[in-house]
Amino acid sequence: MLGINDQELQEIYDFAVQLGKDAGEMLMNACRRRMQGSGATTSVSYVEKASSVDLVTKTDNDVEQFIHTSIAQKYPSHKFIGEETYSAGASRDYLVDDSPTWIVDPLDGTVNFTHLFPMFCVSIAFAVGGIPIIGIIDAPFLRQTFSSCRGRGAWLNGTQRLPLIRDPVPPLPENAPSGCTFACEWGKDRRDTPDGNLIRKVDSFVNMAAERNGRGGKGGMVHGVRSLGSATMDLAYTAMGSFDIWWEGGCWEWDVAAGMAVLEEAGGLVTIANPPPDPTTADIPRAKLGGRLYLAIRPAGDSDSETGRQSQERVVREVWKRVQQLTYSRPGS
Amino acid sequence: MLGINDQELQEIYDFAVQLGKDAGEMLMNACRRRMQGSGATTSVSYVEKASSVDLVTKTDNDVEQFIHTSIAQKYPSHKFIGEETYSAGASRDYLVDDSPTWIVDPLDGTVNFTHLFPMFCVSIAFAVGGIPIIGIIDAPFLRQTFSSCRGRGAWLNGTQRLPLIRDPVPPLPENAPSGCTFACEWGKDRRDTPDGNLIRKVDSFVNMAAERNGRGGKGGMVHGVRSLGSATMDLAYTAMGSFDIWWEGGCWEWDVAAGMAVLEEAGGLVTIANPPPDPTTADIPRAKLGGRLYLAIRPAGDSDSETGRQSQERVVREVWKRVQQLTYSRPGS
Repeated sequence: MLGINDQELQEIYDFAVQLGKDAGEMLMNACRRRMQGSGATTSVSYVEKASSVDLVTKTDNDVEQFIHTSIAQKYPSHKFIGEETYSAGASRDYLVDDSPTWIVDPLDGTVNFTHLFPMFCVSIAFAVGGIPIIGIIDAPFLRQTFSSCRGRGAWLNGTQRLPLIRDPVPPLPENAPSGCTFACEWGKDRRDTPDGNLIRKVDSFVNMAAERNGRGGKGGMVHGVRSLGSATMDLAYTAMGSFDIWWEGGCWEWDVAAGMAVLEEAGGLVTIANPPPDPTTADIPRAKLGGRLYLAIRPAGDSDSETGRQSQERVVREVWKRVQQLTYSRPGS
Repeated sequence: MLGINDQELQEIYDFAVQLGKDAGEMLMNACRRRMQGSGATTSVSYVEKASSVDLVTKTDNDVEQFIHTSIAQKYPSHKFIGEETYSAGASRDYLVDDSPTWIVDPLDGTVNFTHLFPMFCVSIAFAVGGIPIIGIIDAPFLRQTFSSCRGRGAWLNGTQRLPLIRDPVPPLPENAPSGCTFACEWGKDRRDTPDGNLIRKVDSFVNMAAERNGRGGKGGMVHGVRSLGSATMDLAYTAMGSFDIWWEGGCWEWDVAAGMAVLEEAGGLVTIANPPPDPTTADIPRAKLGGRLYLAIRPAGDSDSETGRQSQERVVREVWKRVQQLTYSRPGS
């Protein structure tokens, strides 16, 4: 595969799994220090970035440096993209090219980590040809490690293959989005304007949640709406089959790369979030890293009337009919 | 305490902890059967109750029966209130009187359980004088057991005292709700009318989330909005200190009794959700089981300028200023 043979790929995978666990242990040790600490050590020292909901902790930087150094020692020819190194730099261009590239978020769910809500994780992806083919997600407080390697399956804690229910994998509901669990996030853009992302998101959520005949036919009556505060954990639980639909704007490469790898290897579909002009007939493209807007559907089995893929595409179209365009873009684009 | 001596209380507590773990294991076994099963055993057989978001599974009933039988054998004089026995009955009156009473939800987060999203749990409370004094919450997929007994502290997995950070317990933010994590649920009432609970809730969520100067002064710019799909888990994480604020309507006694016990023993405050006519000066009553509408604030430490209790009351008032009245009531009331 693009100059990497099977044995090399397995070695990279094994290295990545261990790296994820070691980095997760660093996060958990930081939690333990706060839980055991006294006085000064109990408060996380952080500086504010763009707003009060965008925190970067010292732990973030320490863990990214550990991961970066480990990769540079083992694979000096590979590229590295990490949240904190990127944020500290000036470039906002597309980041992922065809080279073997590691895409790392040392701490996804920073707000959760700050408040010790367990939905935080390390996210490590390895991409070749612009496509993440290895994904490692380690959520140490939950003792959950998600891992995948192209062709080798997606796994929870190394032993439970994903999706969790697979004999057979359940089809998606016939009347989706009814019957579906829908994961979404409120995000950091909280501007109070009718065309701001907060209000567009909320309108979209309500369309998905309201009773089926409501909202001028847009009512979707989803089974449940969930917000965890971590795009990576949302994707991991979509790969498990727990969430049927995940829809989000504003993500950066490191927020989604490992989750996309795990979800796609589990059989899920990841496409664009913003609805095209004709949602009922438009092509359903594979999402590209760098797009910032994502719609993901869980792995789905065949039913008597359609294949799993057909049912995923049907659900994509039903979501597109109900959600608004979001306006996240890349600086300069 | 109300005719129960210290040794008896400890015995009841020990019994309740083991009961919660055994019941949690039953839930996890049901998950394992679906994850390992083939054909007919992979789908949960369920019947719809009031709507598609209100499922009752066979597991619900089996676990409740196990808990009910165990309690009746050990404590035949105690009363028992369980979700499934209640739902099958005709009465909708207030359920909890002064007698020693067990209040049980065999499976809180039924939608999560159905989709194998890990945020589901067994919830067992023991109340005397109408106040839950023992709470057990066992979330088997997460391997998290929360427990509390009046005067003996609140605990995660029997070893980590709650709240997680306690030396000292952090004060609430000075500019709350800014800086706070806010947990809320979309609920089952999805009627698409301006005065329906869905739209009232959404307006309240947006007030809490929007930028601080927005919404005519109601913008709260909370740090994050989280929805887990389980009132009990919301309360457990508020007791941990992970969520600063939890606001919800539509709960029944079994949805909140164990969570209230754990949270209050950890030092949290639980009051009414619906704002009184003058939110800045009104009394802040202790929530009663049966009220259906709850507002909870995490344990808070003292700061230089106010006690933890004063800061909790300040946050209650800030929430009251931003949330709408919800219209959940008891049948007949």
